[in-house]
Amino acid sequence: MLSFENDYLEGAHEKVLQRLIETNRIQAPGYGFDQFTDQAIQQIKHKIKCPDATIRFLVGGTQTNQVVINSMLESYEGVISAETGHVAVHEGGAIEYSGHKVLTIPSSEGKITANGVEDYIETFNSDFKRDHMVFPGMVYISHPTEYGTLYSKSELEALSNVCRKHNLPLFMDGARLGYGLMSDHSDMTIEDVANYCDIFYIGGTKIGALCGEAVVFTKQNEPKHFTTRIKHHGALLAKGRLTGIQFLELFTDDLYFKISRHAIEMANKMKEGFLKKGYRLYFDSPTNQQFFILSNDKINELKQKVKFAVWEKYDDQHRVVRFATSWATPEENINQLLELI
Amino acid sequence: MLSFENDYLEGAHEKVLQRLIETNRIQAPGYGFDQFTDQAIQQIKHKIKCPDATIRFLVGGTQTNQVVINSMLESYEGVISAETGHVAVHEGGAIEYSGHKVLTIPSSEGKITANGVEDYIETFNSDFKRDHMVFPGMVYISHPTEYGTLYSKSELEALSNVCRKHNLPLFMDGARLGYGLMSDHSDMTIEDVANYCDIFYIGGTKIGALCGEAVVFTKQNEPKHFTTRIKHHGALLAKGRLTGIQFLELFTDDLYFKISRHAIEMANKMKEGFLKKGYRLYFDSPTNQQFFILSNDKINELKQKVKFAVWEKYDDQHRVVRFATSWATPEENINQLLELI
Amino acid sequence: MLSFENDYLEGAHEKVLQRLIETNRIQAPGYGFDQFTDQAIQQIKHKIKCPDATIRFLVGGTQTNQVVINSMLESYEGVISAETGHVAVHEGGAIEYSGHKVLTIPSSEGKITANGVEDYIETFNSDFKRDHMVFPGMVYISHPTEYGTLYSKSELEALSNVCRKHNLPLFMDGARLGYGLMSDHSDMTIEDVANYCDIFYIGGTKIGALCGEAVVFTKQNEPKHFTTRIKHHGALLAKGRLTGIQFLELFTDDLYFKISRHAIEMANKMKEGFLKKGYRLYFDSPTNQQFFILSNDKINELKQKVKFAVWEKYDDQHRVVRFATSWATPEENINQLLELI
Amino acid sequence: MLSFENDYLEGAHEKVLQRLIETNRIQAPGYGFDQFTDQAIQQIKHKIKCPDATIRFLVGGTQTNQVVINSMLESYEGVISAETGHVAVHEGGAIEYSGHKVLTIPSSEGKITANGVEDYIETFNSDFKRDHMVFPGMVYISHPTEYGTLYSKSELEALSNVCRKHNLPLFMDGARLGYGLMSDHSDMTIEDVANYCDIFYIGGTKIGALCGEAVVFTKQNEPKHFTTRIKHHGALLAKGRLTGIQFLELFTDDLYFKISRHAIEMANKMKEGFLKKGYRLYFDSPTNQQFFILSNDKINELKQKVKFAVWEKYDDQHRVVRFATSWATPEENINQLLELI
Repeated sequence: MLSFENDYLEGAHEKVLQRLIETNRIQAPGYGFDQFTDQAIQQIKHKIKCPDATIRFLVGGTQTNQVVINSMLESYEGVISAETGHVAVHEGGAIEYSGHKVLTIPSSEGKITANGVEDYIETFNSDFKRDHMVFPGMVYISHPTEYGTLYSKSELEALSNVCRKHNLPLFMDGARLGYGLMSDHSDMTIEDVANYCDIFYIGGTKIGALCGEAVVFTKQNEPKHFTTRIKHHGALLAKGRLTGIQFLELFTDDLYFKISRHAIEMANKMKEGFLKKGYRLYFDSPTNQQFFILSNDKINELKQKVKFAVWEKYDDQHRVVRFATSWATPEENINQLLELI
Repeated sequence: MLSFENDYLEGAHEKVLQRLIETNRIQAPGYGFDQFTDQAIQQIKHKIKCPDATIRFLVGGTQTNQVVINSMLESYEGVISAETGHVAVHEGGAIEYSGHKVLTIPSSEGKITANGVEDYIETFNSDFKRDHMVFPGMVYISHPTEYGTLYSKSELEALSNVCRKHNLPLFMDGARLGYGLMSDHSDMTIEDVANYCDIFYIGGTKIGALCGEAVVFTKQNEPKHFTTRIKHHGALLAKGRLTGIQFLELFTDDLYFKISRHAIEMANKMKEGFLKKGYRLYFDSPTNQQFFILSNDKINELKQKVKFAVWEKYDDQHRVVRFATSWATPEENINQLLELI
Repeated sequence: MLSFENDYLEGAHEKVLQRLIETNRIQAPGYGFDQFTDQAIQQIKHKIKCPDATIRFLVGGTQTNQVVINSMLESYEGVISAETGHVAVHEGGAIEYSGHKVLTIPSSEGKITANGVEDYIETFNSDFKRDHMVFPGMVYISHPTEYGTLYSKSELEALSNVCRKHNLPLFMDGARLGYGLMSDHSDMTIEDVANYCDIFYIGGTKIGALCGEAVVFTKQNEPKHFTTRIKHHGALLAKGRLTGIQFLELFTDDLYFKISRHAIEMANKMKEGFLKKGYRLYFDSPTNQQFFILSNDKINELKQKVKFAVWEKYDDQHRVVRFATSWATPEENINQLLELI
Repeated sequence: MLSFENDYLEGAHEKVLQRLIETNRIQAPGYGFDQFTDQAIQQIKHKIKCPDATIRFLVGGTQTNQVVINSMLESYEGVISAETGHVAVHEGGAIEYSGHKVLTIPSSEGKITANGVEDYIETFNSDFKRDHMVFPGMVYISHPTEYGTLYSKSELEALSNVCRKHNLPLFMDGARLGYGLMSDHSDMTIEDVANYCDIFYIGGTKIGALCGEAVVFTKQNEPKHFTTRIKHHGALLAKGRLTGIQFLELFTDDLYFKISRHAIEMANKMKEGFLKKGYRLYFDSPTNQQFFILSNDKINELKQKVKFAVWEKYDDQHRVVRFATSWATPEENINQLLELI
């Protein structure tokens, strides 16, 4: 059955697999100290134009959020996030499990604002019981957000400014970073991301890799003894080469960006197809996740032939559904989908 | 300077001190296994008419919330609380520090409703990513709430029913329980509390004791090896007699309830005095915490002569202030305050 | 340079890679609920002859130890381990980081005994401050151990019996399980392991896979809501297929056991070669890790041409070194090594 | 029945109670920011001749160990302790529960040595898997130890030197500090303790107080936002005055030291009496805990009339027992005990 259920339905891009095969029998040290990982780090640093960056590879998104947030925060600090942020809702409490509160602030279509952060800090600082509260210790954003929306460059700059003013690191969850950067509506480059964020990660799991996220510390701010910290989280790969080799290929000839662009084009085609047939957008998502308002009847009918995510109730007769494209979506699948609807 | 800043400004009720003196040189086993603690437990069980209850004494409120919640929850569970609940806001993240998320739901004047809990659970159960979310594992309420408000008996019954329906223990933070039960507006007895709640605690720190909270497990539901759990939280008193003796006296001749009533009478007198002088209530609190709307000028003037808590902004010219009475408030202090305003 | 530094120097067995390639574009659900993982589970259950087993795949060894131990223990419990156990020494405190003490007992060449466990429990139970101590909650063994040694079937049975007597689950870390089972000195099958252990894992990272460990709960004892527990540890792979597909291939035509046997043969050949040239064994390891006593001069000389691990000091002139073979070791490398020494 | 079971059998010294009564109705701010606590801090600073010290009051010993150790360590660090140290054995895993490993080293009669610490660090630093191990982050000693033994000034100086060399804070658990300092065999003053230790605490629970330990940070090394850290451990007393007032009295006219001396004199008398009657010492303890070797028959006989702790097995016919004196032990009780034996 055709599926648009999420953006991790297939394995890895064939060039990534090919690189794994070519390097397979070359012996390499463990734990991320191998030659392939070294090369991947160099390629990424070159691409983001941030020579002082340090880069580490972790396996998945929730793991990355947990390891990074927990390693950056003091025990009395929490992380500011959109109330819809992945760390706040869909990580099984991984942040709290590591001892820290997620300090949620209002958001719109997954996005928070510099003013929202400023207000939070002001309220916190003016509370007469401030010392009995969790201190804000960093700001977490996802880009694209869980709703597929994007921060503009000026919005990110404003967030970055408020963070620097209050000495809070700004951390961007880039599980779908490529899909954000290659959107028609993006006015940002990955260099901008590296410039405005103190930490961000480049998602591989959802963009061409079997697994893997590249964590970039942009300001010589990698936590001390980070290898040991990764280890005690159970997150240190013995064969660190696995993530290193994949990112080496993804950052060769801009593969990461080219395949991200493919997902955007497929999403655009899908959106146009839905709109032409008279369906309504829940909102106009600029990235690979598209949200439509479908009647319950239509949903039940479609479900027989295609998989997708039923997101939330819209009204008694309708629900919001999500169709996701990815680096792997064949154009033929979009054609078939548009015939079905 | 006159102070109504909170309800823990003085030491302990003189009868409590007297009992400490009388028993001072009597040798007793440690860790809460002494004869005084035994007697206190019997007195409390008798008073709450719950012969199957098990009772433990802890030192303070945040400690009690942390130990109880963490001991009752599985690692994948969180605690449902009002967004204004003490565990959500003013415990420095003690619940998250012990690994659990506080699952906040909307509240009004500090109170949540059975419907609010039901809605939360329904939304949780219908989420297609339910297994990636923190499971609701218990419901926390404070009574009186942080705003001094009270649940009615029928509201508590409804909460209890929804909790039982979903197999969630209902936990009442009774840091100020006496002030709630002795309010003119209370339609509940401590027997009702024991009946509707699975766990609750009787606050001593704010009502007549130097320190100490009596935790009541009403349904033979004390967590296994609770002594060791208390110990690994650093919460086990070597001289457990300290809390036992104090509660023994507080539950002799209804001292706990009589001195709670005093605080209510002082609060009533204070409220009437403010109203007579034309001040506005922020809302009509039935317990020992009274919230008034004062102009910023008035606040600055009063602050020279009396201490109170500035709660939150009301509008540009006004703020909400809290004046607290307690078991220890002399009527003379109320008279002086009413002359000052 | 030739390397015998550890047993995770290369990528994956070519058949495993091949299976990843063949299945690469087949769409599959995430988080381990895919068809490949299902098939792998069936193959493993068939092989271990344990139809009631539940099986989950995690990424690496420390992660597996942390998730399993933390999920099985109550908060007041710790895990009994050899003082040389991996969880006690080389996991960066991952067990303590998740809140539990590693209760170390004396060991010999990496092994503990049933009597050692019995003694520990007896001493614990007779301590007059037992309730102030960490309760033993499970027993952890590694097989082969960190020293490459093996438990005999009767030793494992005895451990299993003492565990059942005291209601403690027995957990076997099988990061190198294949190398143990295929040793000339093993009198155990994987069915025996499944029979005597309550939980064990079949290590893939060190035997033919890019990453992955198969955790087997043999007694219908998988912890409740284990998916959410894995998630809050940051250990849930979005593309669960990655580990499923690899184990599916490893358990097709006994590939796992055949390639494990290769490592043993290479280790045997290496050992004979060293012995022939007059080197001394530190002890006679039956598996893929071989420990020799080399003079410091010899070590410095050899280090120019071959990589190996310097384990510990033997005396002022000598140190113990470890040479590891694996599923991937070419016989040619052994030949070259034996010429060098 | 006569009891020498431990040193926390009674309430508080009468002068301490008297001070609580005198100050009882004086209003004071909460959370340790009251006038009495301020005065107590000044008295202690004056006594220890350490004007830069910061001092905080906590409720009990395990709580203090947990809060201090957890607040001083990074997440990848553990605390070095004697294998018999209180934090290693009898705190229900409170240190591990807060995420840190207790790194035990060999000890003799409860004491560790500078060489033992140096050896541990050397072994740690030379391990080729150092980054996979818990880093030593501080050194914990108890003085007197759990066996009642004492460090000499030169032993403490040596420990202090090795700690400074390796940049590890030295933390002294002084739950029974007074009994150590007032021993005939002590060559140290409390000024020496403040000089050699980076953190230490002055135990009140076992010496004259109802509860309370005074934590001294001697080197302007109080962890940032320590109030919030105490809060999220559930260890912040609302009525901080309770510990402040007690220590104020204990440090008025050297009460703490005088009543400590009393316990030593009672212990000396007890020891002489036992020796005169031909009993054997397990070892010659210089403080308030005395360890004798008694036959099992004698133990059973004595148990009818007096309470004491049965410490451990000595041989098949004998066990080691502990008799403790305290600030509260009446000389009459010693006389009675000596008649009984």
